[in-house]
Amino acid sequence: MWGAGIITSDELAELNRGLDAIAAEFESAPCPDGDAEDLHTWLEALLTEKVGPAGKKIHTARSRNDQVATLLKMYVIAAGEELAGHLRRLIVVGCQRAQDWADQVFPLHTHTQFAAPGSVGFWVLRYATAFDHIRRHVDFCVSEWRRHCPLGAGAVAGSSIPIDRRLQAEGLGFERPSPNALESTSARDECVELLALAAQVALHLQSLATDVILFSQTPLGWTLYPAPFGTGSSMMPNKQNPDAMELLRGHGAAVLSAHGQALTLLKGLPSGYNRDLQCIKPLVRQAAETLFALCGLAEAFLTQLEFDRERITASLAEGGIGATLRMEQKVLEGLPLREAHHAVVEEVRAGGAATLAGDVESAARYQTTGSASPAETRRVAAELLRALG
Amino acid sequence: MWGAGIITSDELAELNRGLDAIAAEFESAPCPDGDAEDLHTWLEALLTEKVGPAGKKIHTARSRNDQVATLLKMYVIAAGEELAGHLRRLIVVGCQRAQDWADQVFPLHTHTQFAAPGSVGFWVLRYATAFDHIRRHVDFCVSEWRRHCPLGAGAVAGSSIPIDRRLQAEGLGFERPSPNALESTSARDECVELLALAAQVALHLQSLATDVILFSQTPLGWTLYPAPFGTGSSMMPNKQNPDAMELLRGHGAAVLSAHGQALTLLKGLPSGYNRDLQCIKPLVRQAAETLFALCGLAEAFLTQLEFDRERITASLAEGGIGATLRMEQKVLEGLPLREAHHAVVEEVRAGGAATLAGDVESAARYQTTGSASPAETRRVAAELLRALG
Amino acid sequence: MWGAGIITSDELAELNRGLDAIAAEFESAPCPDGDAEDLHTWLEALLTEKVGPAGKKIHTARSRNDQVATLLKMYVIAAGEELAGHLRRLIVVGCQRAQDWADQVFPLHTHTQFAAPGSVGFWVLRYATAFDHIRRHVDFCVSEWRRHCPLGAGAVAGSSIPIDRRLQAEGLGFERPSPNALESTSARDECVELLALAAQVALHLQSLATDVILFSQTPLGWTLYPAPFGTGSSMMPNKQNPDAMELLRGHGAAVLSAHGQALTLLKGLPSGYNRDLQCIKPLVRQAAETLFALCGLAEAFLTQLEFDRERITASLAEGGIGATLRMEQKVLEGLPLREAHHAVVEEVRAGGAATLAGDVESAARYQTTGSASPAETRRVAAELLRALG
Amino acid sequence: MWGAGIITSDELAELNRGLDAIAAEFESAPCPDGDAEDLHTWLEALLTEKVGPAGKKIHTARSRNDQVATLLKMYVIAAGEELAGHLRRLIVVGCQRAQDWADQVFPLHTHTQFAAPGSVGFWVLRYATAFDHIRRHVDFCVSEWRRHCPLGAGAVAGSSIPIDRRLQAEGLGFERPSPNALESTSARDECVELLALAAQVALHLQSLATDVILFSQTPLGWTLYPAPFGTGSSMMPNKQNPDAMELLRGHGAAVLSAHGQALTLLKGLPSGYNRDLQCIKPLVRQAAETLFALCGLAEAFLTQLEFDRERITASLAEGGIGATLRMEQKVLEGLPLREAHHAVVEEVRAGGAATLAGDVESAARYQTTGSASPAETRRVAAELLRALG
Repeated sequence: MWGAGIITSDELAELNRGLDAIAAEFESAPCPDGDAEDLHTWLEALLTEKVGPAGKKIHTARSRNDQVATLLKMYVIAAGEELAGHLRRLIVVGCQRAQDWADQVFPLHTHTQFAAPGSVGFWVLRYATAFDHIRRHVDFCVSEWRRHCPLGAGAVAGSSIPIDRRLQAEGLGFERPSPNALESTSARDECVELLALAAQVALHLQSLATDVILFSQTPLGWTLYPAPFGTGSSMMPNKQNPDAMELLRGHGAAVLSAHGQALTLLKGLPSGYNRDLQCIKPLVRQAAETLFALCGLAEAFLTQLEFDRERITASLAEGGIGATLRMEQKVLEGLPLREAHHAVVEEVRAGGAATLAGDVESAARYQTTGSASPAETRRVAAELLRALG
Repeated sequence: MWGAGIITSDELAELNRGLDAIAAEFESAPCPDGDAEDLHTWLEALLTEKVGPAGKKIHTARSRNDQVATLLKMYVIAAGEELAGHLRRLIVVGCQRAQDWADQVFPLHTHTQFAAPGSVGFWVLRYATAFDHIRRHVDFCVSEWRRHCPLGAGAVAGSSIPIDRRLQAEGLGFERPSPNALESTSARDECVELLALAAQVALHLQSLATDVILFSQTPLGWTLYPAPFGTGSSMMPNKQNPDAMELLRGHGAAVLSAHGQALTLLKGLPSGYNRDLQCIKPLVRQAAETLFALCGLAEAFLTQLEFDRERITASLAEGGIGATLRMEQKVLEGLPLREAHHAVVEEVRAGGAATLAGDVESAARYQTTGSASPAETRRVAAELLRALG
Repeated sequence: MWGAGIITSDELAELNRGLDAIAAEFESAPCPDGDAEDLHTWLEALLTEKVGPAGKKIHTARSRNDQVATLLKMYVIAAGEELAGHLRRLIVVGCQRAQDWADQVFPLHTHTQFAAPGSVGFWVLRYATAFDHIRRHVDFCVSEWRRHCPLGAGAVAGSSIPIDRRLQAEGLGFERPSPNALESTSARDECVELLALAAQVALHLQSLATDVILFSQTPLGWTLYPAPFGTGSSMMPNKQNPDAMELLRGHGAAVLSAHGQALTLLKGLPSGYNRDLQCIKPLVRQAAETLFALCGLAEAFLTQLEFDRERITASLAEGGIGATLRMEQKVLEGLPLREAHHAVVEEVRAGGAATLAGDVESAARYQTTGSASPAETRRVAAELLRALG
Repeated sequence: MWGAGIITSDELAELNRGLDAIAAEFESAPCPDGDAEDLHTWLEALLTEKVGPAGKKIHTARSRNDQVATLLKMYVIAAGEELAGHLRRLIVVGCQRAQDWADQVFPLHTHTQFAAPGSVGFWVLRYATAFDHIRRHVDFCVSEWRRHCPLGAGAVAGSSIPIDRRLQAEGLGFERPSPNALESTSARDECVELLALAAQVALHLQSLATDVILFSQTPLGWTLYPAPFGTGSSMMPNKQNPDAMELLRGHGAAVLSAHGQALTLLKGLPSGYNRDLQCIKPLVRQAAETLFALCGLAEAFLTQLEFDRERITASLAEGGIGATLRMEQKVLEGLPLREAHHAVVEEVRAGGAATLAGDVESAARYQTTGSASPAETRRVAAELLRALG
């Protein structure tokens, strides 16, 4: 006897034998058809066919309601772990490229206008720090999802058969059974949370894509856009288009929208299992798989991306991007900031923007923590990598 | 001299005097009008008017870009703390009512059909456990938001003036300066995260409302719906309508949508500050204030809600809700589950649903952790309250 | 020579022969693999293989940009027509059931409370009138989509080869060529409009599902829910669940969300074709196919749905639903409305709700156009059917 | 006696007198406070105070349910008309600027890359044609919204008092009474439709903004960005930022999201009036007012926008934008398209992109309807203006 005293040790041995046989039989078979309402019912029928009456006991103290909640939560936990892995790889590649490109100074934008000198490494480090922030959040959520196992919640109220939910929970990798059977079978918070995290990652991926498209523009041409990630034009012989980045941005929109779709699905449902809840499964799976593909694409792309030193150098003379540094020089010489600002504005108005170029040295003058100086970019990248372990 | 050596101690004293004067002057005044581009510019001009040249120094090593990012993050932190407070109060009232109503057995629903007996306390405990899960998440996010202070990120790249960002960060209640000035001025992750949490809370609040409306239906009438939360009809003299719950559900929809609106706003923006980012401020503020009002409404409502014992008792005879317990009784007597299920299905088909009533004793027969038994509801409620401290 | 003078009549004959051969070859073959960038490039290569040099001319004055815009618009037009067909069938079945059920009086709800007597036919007619409104809108949109053919817009600017876009447009079933090549290759308004219409249909379908679930509740049990559209419970032998209606509501949520997803996708894109636009194709197709399946489900379901006369009759005594009619009787006898209202409110407060039952005669007393009287329901249903032709 | 015979002509005169007095009294007064449940109840009480018993009759055969549905539909009709007016003005200014700028040739983009020569007039005409398409749609919807008046639908089922709904409908500017009282009080299709149209307009406005921001970029600087629509930087003396266009894009996101918010609000509600429906009113109003402000902003901006001829001319030498025209020249000389394409690709690869410049003459070579040639832009603009009347 084991646990609740429902299944004898002989029956347990038989059930295990039956399950092994089914596992072997269907290992590489396509998903079975049939009249069964779902996989759980199908499995029980097949098992009963193979091992006899013991099969009829396996649904004891169970409902499909808690079974689907449990399997879905296990899928979400696995997806969270896979997402964390993708984020780690993106942080690593981001930090490595930040170090590679720490001295490659180019114009940073604000308002889609050239603003101030900073390095390409500083730019890509932006995403590594963002992904590190989200990675910590993903790790937290995965550990929260593992706290409570839905199995044993039954249809809605638990069971009068004294099964040991703690054993079940631990066997499936959870910390403990969930504290309220109604909540366990009604809610899908782990799905909503995974989709919120997925949207946040997609938001940064599409921002990365938007930046690369901006940097690749005519006439900037800062990127040496890797050929496998682009295509030509069927009508315009002059074109090489940044298609992979446009697809990263475009497919990212689907991931951005999945969270809202889940909320719309769940809105207005009363407590207790409703069949509508089944519709969240393809939504979560599709969003997760799309996101993983996009993470892989971004990682591969960043690994192969290179920049055109010459084109970038030409751009450093545009936009008067040395103005802030000149203003701050005046401040360091004793002028109050507001007066220094007015002085440089006058200089720009008098046509001096061209003399306010950025250059490779200028970025080295930033002094603050987290600034665009090559040294600081290297320091932060190293620290991020170290914290990742 | 203090920090970066820009402002002398005399100037500091003057600036503090000026700021105190301005604070006193505008304490209860309406928001000032004027030609200034924003509050920061307005304040600097006024301060300079009051204390002279020192005012012209206060924007040193600063940009409105890092200032608005910092103030907004501080607002989000405060909103997160306020939300955590609301959730704590909702958990307390939920656990108290769970204990009050632990013995008030009524039919639980699945598929909006009567399903099995459980108590009203077990039902309300659903929400307390959900809010406890979200509260832990909110606490995590607030502590994450406090990790990195944007101030000192400047316009986009930091500053060449050697200010001490660590001092600023700690002075404002953050742990340390943010590691990448571009990320700090470009991203609004804390807003997106707050809105995701807000949506999750709103999802449960509207579910609570949906349940109460269901329980209040003709002919169920299980609730003694508190009069201040309802209204009559202008045409139908027979009606008392659960308006507050409908408004909880309706206004909740606005909170559900704010997260998606933020994503749409941020989508397609290149790195570096863009003026579009200002549009997230009213969105976050409106969603937060609506949510706080809804939390307050739900708390007040739950405190005053009562149930009609007689109407509920009448409902316990409907829907054959004792069927699962009878089936499990047969299992405990040795019948395999599947056979016991068939036996009770036959009984129901033969018209026996009426004899499968639930009653006050039946819920006491649940044995599993997290089940609908009165004892388990009391235990879980007590544990939740204890964990809250 | 034909049209622009590019292709000779011999070449035309050869091209037609080649296309016929390819059509025959791939009629029932799976979608071909290959290195080609897309279907258009693949077809040109294959055609050139089959008919020689003439194949190299077929892309003249064309770009994939206008080709995909044209094919997608043609798909949207076909989907609009299919949607109009579904709506017509839903209107027909709705009007037929409205006539079948015109005398089956039951309590109408407001605020999810019993409100006033009306017939089941009057209820289902609600949806027929809604679908008729949307059908007119769909017809308008389809005719608008046919106004302008994108083909010939080229990559972005048209072509310097004097092709006759009018001939092309008419040959493909459009009225005339589009007036601006940039708009034709940049925008996807027809997709956005189709998705808005789809969302509106889905909104009514999920409302229909919500109503049926409400009507099927314990203890109302007004529906004789058709067995093929429901399922049993794996744990609760007493349950029959309205699964098909829950899936109608649940899958409807995906259709509701597709419009917003399209807007998110398109937001932030600059003018001119961007590869992101390809991502709208699976979105539109999936939403359309899901919606058509849901329309078919709703039509089949309504055809088979029946109501339980006895259970409904029992409900007519609940909720004092005769109150408005009694009040209006007093008005017809000369009492001002407000005084009649107060009088009946007093009657209800004195416990007289039970005497204010609805009955089969009461609904016959409605006098206004569009009211819930059986005669008016029959009249409106007949008129809707007549207008449909 | 008038209509249903409820109100005598003396009472009618008194009521009109009372209403006139109230109108005068509150003409410029703030919105009144009070205990009344809503405006309709407040008005009835005040009227009764002023004119005595006749006031108690005015709610006869009415419910707040049909009153709010009617007023809201009237608001939506007025908003639709206002939107149509804005679109007309945008079409006019778009066509005028298309004519002004028909000869100002610049590089058109695809994939955010320079693609082919076309004129600024051709670009702005894109939006005029889009707005003309939407304007026709708005006109259709407004005429549909006028078809059916909700007033007289009562609470849910109509009335047993024989009022003449046709008279009411026509008096309020509708064609006829609505055919189903349940639909009239349950649905908000006109709101959903207005919000879909608003989203479509906002989509084009934010696209216009995105284009202008792109054109204003460093180092393109094609626009002479009108100063009242931009701002400087508090830290960077070199910056002038296109703030108004960023706000057009940013506030546009709120309008894009309102449609989805309405769907979320309406999802899951059962038939019959539910108080949730009140929450659609501020949503519709806010979206409409924001949109009108954005339309006004876009119109004013387009009126003042000018382009920098010199900077644009410099750009025409970039990106090999003459390639398609050269390829088509070869086609016109007899080469099959595919061979001409390969020949020009080789030319570009050999470094000849620089010789494939666009120029003012090149755009004149487009021959197709709707192309980017100055003549065609002028023709289409004139035709659009003519059609507008």
